[in-house]
Amino acid sequence: MKVSEPVLAAMRQTNELFDAEVIRKRDIDGLDRVYTAHARALPPGAPIVEGRDQIKSFWRQAIASLGLKSATLATVDAQAVGDSVIEIGRADLTVEDGQILTVKYVVHWKQEDGTWKWNIDIWNLNQ
Amino acid sequence: MKVSEPVLAAMRQTNELFDAEVIRKRDIDGLDRVYTAHARALPPGAPIVEGRDQIKSFWRQAIASLGLKSATLATVDAQAVGDSVIEIGRADLTVEDGQILTVKYVVHWKQEDGTWKWNIDIWNLNQ
Repeated sequence: MKVSEPVLAAMRQTNELFDAEVIRKRDIDGLDRVYTAHARALPPGAPIVEGRDQIKSFWRQAIASLGLKSATLATVDAQAVGDSVIEIGRADLTVEDGQILTVKYVVHWKQEDGTWKWNIDIWNLNQ
Repeated sequence: MKVSEPVLAAMRQTNELFDAEVIRKRDIDGLDRVYTAHARALPPGAPIVEGRDQIKSFWRQAIASLGLKSATLATVDAQAVGDSVIEIGRADLTVEDGQILTVKYVVHWKQEDGTWKWNIDIWNLNQ
Protein backbone atom coordinates (compact mmCIF):
# COMPACT_ATOMS: atom_id res chain seq x y z
CA MET A 1 0.00 0.00 0.00
CA LYS A 2 1.14 3.52 -0.78
CA VAL A 3 2.54 5.71 1.98
CA SER A 4 0.75 9.04 2.38
CA GLU A 5 2.59 12.25 1.50
CA PRO A 6 2.59 13.58 5.12
CA VAL A 7 4.21 10.34 6.33
CA LEU A 8 6.82 10.46 3.52
CA ALA A 9 7.56 14.07 4.54
CA ALA A 10 7.96 13.02 8.18
CA MET A 11 10.32 10.24 7.08
CA ARG A 12 12.42 12.71 5.05
CA GLN A 13 12.61 14.93 8.13
CA THR A 14 14.02 12.07 10.22
CA ASN A 15 16.51 11.13 7.50
CA GLU A 16 17.66 14.76 7.20
CA LEU A 17 18.04 15.01 10.96
CA PHE A 18 20.31 11.95 10.89
CA ASP A 19 22.52 13.65 8.30
CA ALA A 20 22.43 17.23 9.63
CA GLU A 21 22.54 16.64 13.39
CA VAL A 22 23.99 13.19 14.05
CA ILE A 23 26.56 12.90 11.26
CA ARG A 24 27.53 16.49 10.38
CA LYS A 25 27.32 17.93 13.92
CA ARG A 26 28.23 14.64 15.63
CA ASP A 27 25.28 15.10 18.02
CA ILE A 28 24.89 11.46 19.04
CA ASP A 29 21.88 12.21 21.28
CA GLY A 30 20.07 13.28 18.11
CA LEU A 31 19.64 9.52 17.62
CA ASP A 32 16.81 9.71 20.21
CA ARG A 33 14.76 11.27 17.41
CA VAL A 34 15.96 8.84 14.73
CA TYR A 35 15.70 5.36 16.30
CA THR A 36 12.88 3.93 18.43
CA ALA A 37 13.82 3.06 22.03
CA HIS A 38 13.98 -0.67 21.25
CA ALA A 39 15.32 -0.35 17.71
CA ARG A 40 17.72 -2.83 16.20
CA ALA A 41 20.53 -1.92 13.81
CA LEU A 42 22.21 -4.61 11.69
CA PRO A 43 25.51 -3.14 10.45
CA PRO A 44 27.86 -4.97 8.09
CA GLY A 45 30.86 -6.48 9.87
CA ALA A 46 29.27 -6.65 13.33
CA PRO A 47 26.53 -8.50 15.24
CA ILE A 48 23.03 -7.05 15.76
CA VAL A 49 23.01 -3.85 17.84
CA GLU A 50 19.96 -3.68 20.14
CA GLY A 51 18.40 -0.64 21.81
CA ARG A 52 19.21 3.03 21.55
CA ASP A 53 22.14 3.07 23.97
CA GLN A 54 24.02 0.39 22.06
CA ILE A 55 23.07 2.09 18.79
CA LYS A 56 24.53 5.37 20.06
CA SER A 57 27.78 3.61 20.97
CA PHE A 58 27.86 1.97 17.56
CA TRP A 59 27.41 5.26 15.65
CA ARG A 60 29.82 7.18 17.88
CA GLN A 61 32.52 4.66 17.00
CA ALA A 62 31.53 4.25 13.33
CA ILE A 63 31.48 8.01 12.69
CA ALA A 64 34.92 8.38 14.25
CA SER A 65 36.55 5.35 12.64
CA LEU A 66 35.20 6.10 9.12
CA GLY A 67 35.63 9.85 9.52
CA LEU A 68 32.03 10.07 8.36
CA LYS A 69 31.22 13.58 7.09
CA SER A 70 27.72 13.27 5.63
CA ALA A 71 25.00 10.70 4.93
CA THR A 72 22.56 11.57 2.15
CA LEU A 73 19.57 9.22 2.26
CA ALA A 74 17.01 8.75 -0.51
CA THR A 75 13.90 6.58 -0.55
CA VAL A 76 13.79 4.08 -3.44
CA ASP A 77 10.49 2.51 -2.39
CA ALA A 78 8.19 2.75 0.63
CA GLN A 79 5.22 0.52 1.46
CA ALA A 80 2.70 0.99 4.23
CA VAL A 81 2.31 -2.23 6.25
CA GLY A 82 -0.24 -2.06 9.07
CA ASP A 83 0.58 1.10 11.04
CA SER A 84 4.23 0.99 10.00
CA VAL A 85 6.28 1.47 6.81
CA ILE A 86 8.95 -0.58 5.05
CA GLU A 87 11.42 1.51 3.10
CA ILE A 88 14.10 0.50 0.62
CA GLY A 89 16.63 3.27 0.19
CA ARG A 90 20.09 4.27 -0.87
CA ALA A 91 22.62 6.36 1.00
CA ASP A 92 25.74 8.14 -0.10
CA LEU A 93 28.22 8.28 2.76
CA THR A 94 31.07 10.75 2.48
CA VAL A 95 34.10 9.64 4.49
CA GLU A 96 37.33 11.27 5.67
CA ASP A 97 39.29 11.15 2.43
CA GLY A 98 36.35 12.44 0.36
CA GLN A 99 35.52 8.95 -0.89
CA ILE A 100 31.78 8.27 -1.29
CA LEU A 101 30.46 4.88 -0.18
CA THR A 102 27.23 3.79 -1.88
CA VAL A 103 24.99 1.99 0.55
CA LYS A 104 21.57 0.40 0.15
CA TYR A 105 19.30 -0.22 3.11
CA VAL A 106 15.97 -1.47 4.39
CA VAL A 107 14.32 0.38 7.28
CA HIS A 108 11.20 -0.65 9.16
CA TRP A 109 9.64 2.60 10.35
CA LYS A 110 7.43 3.04 13.39
CA GLN A 111 5.78 6.01 14.95
CA GLU A 112 6.99 6.74 18.50
CA ASP A 113 5.89 9.80 20.49
CA GLY A 114 4.41 11.25 17.30
CA THR A 115 7.68 10.95 15.37
CA TRP A 116 8.45 8.48 12.57
CA LYS A 117 11.59 6.58 13.53
CA TRP A 118 13.78 3.67 12.44
CA ASN A 119 12.76 0.50 14.27
CA ILE A 120 14.83 -1.95 12.23
CA ASP A 121 17.78 -0.68 10.18
CA ILE A 122 19.96 -2.90 7.99
CA TRP A 123 22.34 -1.90 5.23
CA ASN A 124 25.23 -3.05 3.08
CA LEU A 125 27.66 -1.62 0.55
CA ASN A 126 27.16 -1.83 -3.21
CA GLN A 127 30.87 -2.35 -3.82
CA MET B 1 2.30 -7.93 16.80
CA LYS B 2 3.05 -11.61 17.25
CA VAL B 3 3.13 -13.93 14.25
CA SER B 4 0.80 -16.94 14.55
CA GLU B 5 2.31 -20.42 14.85
CA PRO B 6 0.91 -21.64 11.49
CA VAL B 7 2.51 -18.65 9.72
CA LEU B 8 5.84 -19.25 11.50
CA ALA B 9 5.66 -22.90 10.40
CA ALA B 10 4.98 -21.82 6.79
CA MET B 11 7.98 -19.46 6.97
CA ARG B 12 10.20 -22.27 8.24
CA GLN B 13 9.03 -24.42 5.35
CA THR B 14 10.08 -21.76 2.82
CA ASN B 15 13.45 -21.28 4.54
CA GLU B 16 14.06 -25.03 4.55
CA LEU B 17 13.12 -25.25 0.88
CA PHE B 18 15.72 -22.58 0.11
CA ASP B 19 18.39 -24.66 1.86
CA ALA B 20 17.32 -28.14 0.74
CA GLU B 21 16.28 -27.48 -2.87
CA VAL B 22 17.92 -24.27 -4.05
CA ILE B 23 21.28 -24.45 -2.30
CA ARG B 24 21.94 -28.16 -1.68
CA LYS B 25 20.35 -29.46 -4.93
CA ARG B 26 21.12 -26.30 -6.93
CA ASP B 27 17.52 -26.26 -8.19
CA ILE B 28 17.37 -22.57 -9.10
CA ASP B 29 13.71 -22.79 -10.19
CA GLY B 30 12.89 -23.67 -6.58
CA LEU B 31 13.24 -19.90 -6.06
CA ASP B 32 9.72 -19.57 -7.56
CA ARG B 33 8.50 -20.87 -4.21
CA VAL B 34 10.88 -18.74 -2.14
CA TYR B 35 10.65 -15.22 -3.62
CA THR B 36 7.52 -13.32 -4.75
CA ALA B 37 7.34 -12.52 -8.47
CA HIS B 38 8.32 -8.87 -7.89
CA ALA B 39 10.68 -9.47 -4.98
CA ARG B 40 13.81 -7.44 -4.41
CA ALA B 41 17.07 -8.82 -3.08
CA LEU B 42 19.75 -6.48 -1.71
CA PRO B 43 23.01 -8.46 -1.61
CA PRO B 44 26.26 -7.06 -0.23
CA GLY B 45 28.69 -5.99 -2.95
CA ALA B 46 26.08 -5.49 -5.67
CA PRO B 47 23.17 -3.19 -6.59
CA ILE B 48 19.52 -4.08 -5.90
CA VAL B 49 18.33 -7.18 -7.75
CA GLU B 50 14.70 -6.85 -8.91
CA GLY B 51 12.25 -9.57 -9.89
CA ARG B 52 12.51 -13.32 -9.82
CA ASP B 53 14.43 -13.73 -13.10
CA GLN B 54 17.21 -11.42 -11.97
CA ILE B 55 17.16 -13.04 -8.52
CA LYS B 56 17.61 -16.48 -10.12
CA SER B 57 20.60 -15.21 -12.11
CA PHE B 58 22.06 -13.69 -8.96
CA TRP B 59 21.77 -16.91 -6.92
CA ARG B 60 22.98 -19.12 -9.79
CA GLN B 61 26.16 -17.05 -9.91
CA ALA B 62 26.52 -16.59 -6.14
CA ILE B 63 26.13 -20.32 -5.41
CA ALA B 64 28.76 -21.17 -8.02
CA SER B 65 31.25 -18.46 -7.10
CA LEU B 66 31.05 -19.07 -3.33
CA GLY B 67 30.77 -22.83 -3.76
CA LEU B 68 27.76 -22.55 -1.45
CA LYS B 69 26.91 -25.93 0.11
CA SER B 70 24.18 -25.12 2.63
CA ALA B 71 22.27 -22.19 4.13
CA THR B 72 20.80 -22.76 7.59
CA LEU B 73 18.34 -19.97 8.42
CA ALA B 74 16.94 -19.19 11.88
CA THR B 75 14.39 -16.58 12.89
CA VAL B 76 15.61 -14.18 15.60
CA ASP B 77 12.44 -12.08 15.64
CA ALA B 78 9.27 -11.90 13.58
CA GLN B 79 6.56 -9.23 13.72
CA ALA B 80 3.21 -9.25 11.95
CA VAL B 81 2.68 -5.95 10.11
CA GLY B 82 -0.63 -5.65 8.28
CA ASP B 83 -1.04 -8.84 6.24
CA SER B 84 2.74 -9.32 6.00
CA VAL B 85 5.63 -10.19 8.33
CA ILE B 86 9.01 -8.61 9.05
CA GLU B 87 11.64 -11.11 10.14
CA ILE B 88 15.11 -10.59 11.56
CA GLY B 89 17.20 -13.70 11.18
CA ARG B 90 20.61 -15.25 11.06
CA ALA B 91 22.03 -17.65 8.52
CA ASP B 92 25.03 -19.91 8.56
CA LEU B 93 26.36 -20.35 5.04
CA THR B 94 28.74 -23.23 4.42
CA VAL B 95 31.03 -22.53 1.49
CA GLU B 96 33.41 -24.60 -0.68
CA ASP B 97 36.34 -24.87 1.73
CA GLY B 98 34.09 -25.74 4.70
CA GLN B 99 34.27 -22.21 6.05
CA ILE B 100 31.04 -20.98 7.68
CA LEU B 101 29.95 -17.41 6.98
CA THR B 102 27.67 -15.88 9.63
CA VAL B 103 25.04 -13.70 8.03
CA LYS B 104 22.22 -11.62 9.50
CA TYR B 105 19.23 -10.59 7.45
CA VAL B 106 15.89 -8.82 7.33
CA VAL B 107 13.12 -10.32 5.21
CA HIS B 108 9.76 -8.77 4.44
CA TRP B 109 7.41 -11.73 3.92
CA LYS B 110 4.26 -11.74 1.80
CA GLN B 111 1.77 -14.40 0.96
CA GLU B 112 1.61 -15.20 -2.79
CA ASP B 113 -0.56 -18.00 -4.21
CA GLY B 114 -1.09 -19.28 -0.65
CA THR B 115 2.65 -19.55 0.07
CA TRP B 116 4.67 -17.30 2.39
CA LYS B 117 7.57 -15.87 0.38
CA TRP B 118 10.41 -13.36 0.60
CA ASN B 119 9.32 -10.03 -0.87
CA ILE B 120 12.30 -7.97 0.30
CA ASP B 121 15.53 -9.72 1.28
CA ILE B 122 18.62 -7.91 2.56
CA TRP B 123 21.62 -9.32 4.38
CA ASN B 124 25.20 -8.70 5.43
CA LEU B 125 28.07 -10.54 7.05
CA ASN B 126 28.90 -10.36 10.75
CA GLN B 127 32.64 -10.42 10.06
